[in-house]
Amino acid sequence: MSALRSVIAASGSYIPPVRVPNSDFLNHDFRGADGAPMSKSNTEIVNQFESITGIQERRYVENGTVTSDMAYAAANDALTSSHIDPESLDLIIVAHNFGDVRKGGGPPDLVPSLAARVKSKLRIAKPRAAAFDLVFGCPGWIQGVITADAMIRAGDIQRAMIIGADTLSRISDPHDRDSMIYADGAGATVLEARQTDAGILAHASRSDTLDHSGMLSMGPSNKEEVFIEALFLKMEGRKLYKYALQTVASSMKECLDKAGLALTDVSKILIHQANGKMDEAIVTALYESEHLQPPPDVMPMTISWLGNSSVATVPTLFDLIAKGRLNGQSFHPGEIVLFASVGAGMHINAFAYRMP
Amino acid sequence: MSALRSVIAASGSYIPPVRVPNSDFLNHDFRGADGAPMSKSNTEIVNQFESITGIQERRYVENGTVTSDMAYAAANDALTSSHIDPESLDLIIVAHNFGDVRKGGGPPDLVPSLAARVKSKLRIAKPRAAAFDLVFGCPGWIQGVITADAMIRAGDIQRAMIIGADTLSRISDPHDRDSMIYADGAGATVLEARQTDAGILAHASRSDTLDHSGMLSMGPSNKEEVFIEALFLKMEGRKLYKYALQTVASSMKECLDKAGLALTDVSKILIHQANGKMDEAIVTALYESEHLQPPPDVMPMTISWLGNSSVATVPTLFDLIAKGRLNGQSFHPGEIVLFASVGAGMHINAFAYRMP
Repeated sequence: MSALRSVIAASGSYIPPVRVPNSDFLNHDFRGADGAPMSKSNTEIVNQFESITGIQERRYVENGTVTSDMAYAAANDALTSSHIDPESLDLIIVAHNFGDVRKGGGPPDLVPSLAARVKSKLRIAKPRAAAFDLVFGCPGWIQGVITADAMIRAGDIQRAMIIGADTLSRISDPHDRDSMIYADGAGATVLEARQTDAGILAHASRSDTLDHSGMLSMGPSNKEEVFIEALFLKMEGRKLYKYALQTVASSMKECLDKAGLALTDVSKILIHQANGKMDEAIVTALYESEHLQPPPDVMPMTISWLGNSSVATVPTLFDLIAKGRLNGQSFHPGEIVLFASVGAGMHINAFAYRMP
Repeated sequence: MSALRSVIAASGSYIPPVRVPNSDFLNHDFRGADGAPMSKSNTEIVNQFESITGIQERRYVENGTVTSDMAYAAANDALTSSHIDPESLDLIIVAHNFGDVRKGGGPPDLVPSLAARVKSKLRIAKPRAAAFDLVFGCPGWIQGVITADAMIRAGDIQRAMIIGADTLSRISDPHDRDSMIYADGAGATVLEARQTDAGILAHASRSDTLDHSGMLSMGPSNKEEVFIEALFLKMEGRKLYKYALQTVASSMKECLDKAGLALTDVSKILIHQANGKMDEAIVTALYESEHLQPPPDVMPMTISWLGNSSVATVPTLFDLIAKGRLNGQSFHPGEIVLFASVGAGMHINAFAYRMP
């Protein structure tokens, strides 16, 4: 049924240039949360990491690059590849979780908002495009899309740029195995208002904060003698895995139900690249709840070579497929794509999208 | 005309307990941006400051309190004073600009989002209330209201808590005169969907980033030898004043035009408590553009005793009036209240509100 809906009119991404293979971690002094050296050898640690997460390498930014630089690059890619006039944007949202964090320490910086920095770098003169940041853990980019979609359906705006960018390399504790998961990156999309039966059909969000707000949080290095007063991203990995399995699949199902879609209508699932095995388990749980098996290739993945770049994974995945740069995969008019994410909060969200 | 609109169903605030009079700054070692000692005496500096800004004292949090604690306190005040069930909320937005910054240094912390922390402290069990942070300079709370209002009018949510909280005392350079402006605080409101001719009638936002994104930004202390690697809020005060005069009044006018209201319909203006003289000049410019003079008492102020608490000033002002705690002022059914703010970005916004 035709209605005023939001469609993705353009996409872009920034894949940082520094390739960091797992072998780069073989000489790390890994410690447990209690500061004690690990009982396993680094070779065992790295091999086990790779088998669980599916990550072989990840990308880091160069030393002089900060999050807003990547956010700008992804936004600029979306605009130039689509020939959309930057001055036609009515809103710019940058989802991130750490602000601009410089190499070598110094506190994160959010003033002015990263969205203001991106708008400035894009040389947009039009005042009437508000530029704000949204913080919602890894699901921040999807939440930005859900937020902009409401503003489009309410008639407040016509065209919005939603960017996800984070530099997890700058908050990675070198003495914590979990840091091997983290990567840098940025992805961007332009949403626009159309009278259509395609676009965003439904969405769902949840914030499980009562018992889960400490699952991903900032804390000191596992190795006490690290000098710089700094905070690093810390994860209760085992609990998080269990939580995600229980709740992400049900949120995806809730979203499909809202859209009046069956699971068999879905042709692609773009899920936050958190951890390869966890993503597989979530999607398997989703299909098993309907006594089905996941179709082959329903879940395109980038984690093996891009790692977990927080808010950037989903829009980057979309952009790579849209531009035919991911193993020859492509989007087809009318197909249903289900977007989903989970991260610090704990927050989970999803939206169901019909390709125009 | 009756329509689905957002009304403010509750409000709350947190006024920090530590009173800091201007005399507390008389022994500061103030420096210019170039690091040089000031040519004026501290008595002259403090007196001039008071005459320009109207600030006699400001409030700081106690050492153990962080932004999310204040945000929780304001939200809790809004809920308990209105007897609204926390489990009835569908959305929680916390507008802030620095995350949780601890006394004595250490980097700001946004993971999990402050909204997740607040939701956790409120002991809300319901998952389906997304809790995200919004960063938009001092106008962040108004932008949160504008965002939640769109989600209400789009039919996505029924009830939202929007909080503004910042601890500027933690990013104040003791060697910079401008730091005397900064204060701590939190304000919160509950927006809810109603079929009504009252509530939010129109809004306007702008982000002037091309030439203005550096007017408020983070930088080192004015006194080089300050040891801790830290960033402080830095302001190009003179340029900012000029910019605000030119653009805030026109945004307020734009908002009234969108609502089909005349300036003479407005009975109260709740403006960001940035600087007393600047606020007066903005409101005078607004009325002068219509060949009018501002009515007496059209602009309730708190800056003399609360200072500039960033995102917290406007919701705190609303709450104090709503609860009859500001010089006997009160809201009356049907009256038009114009909300407006300006801050780092540079961002400006406004909304026109008819009291239910």
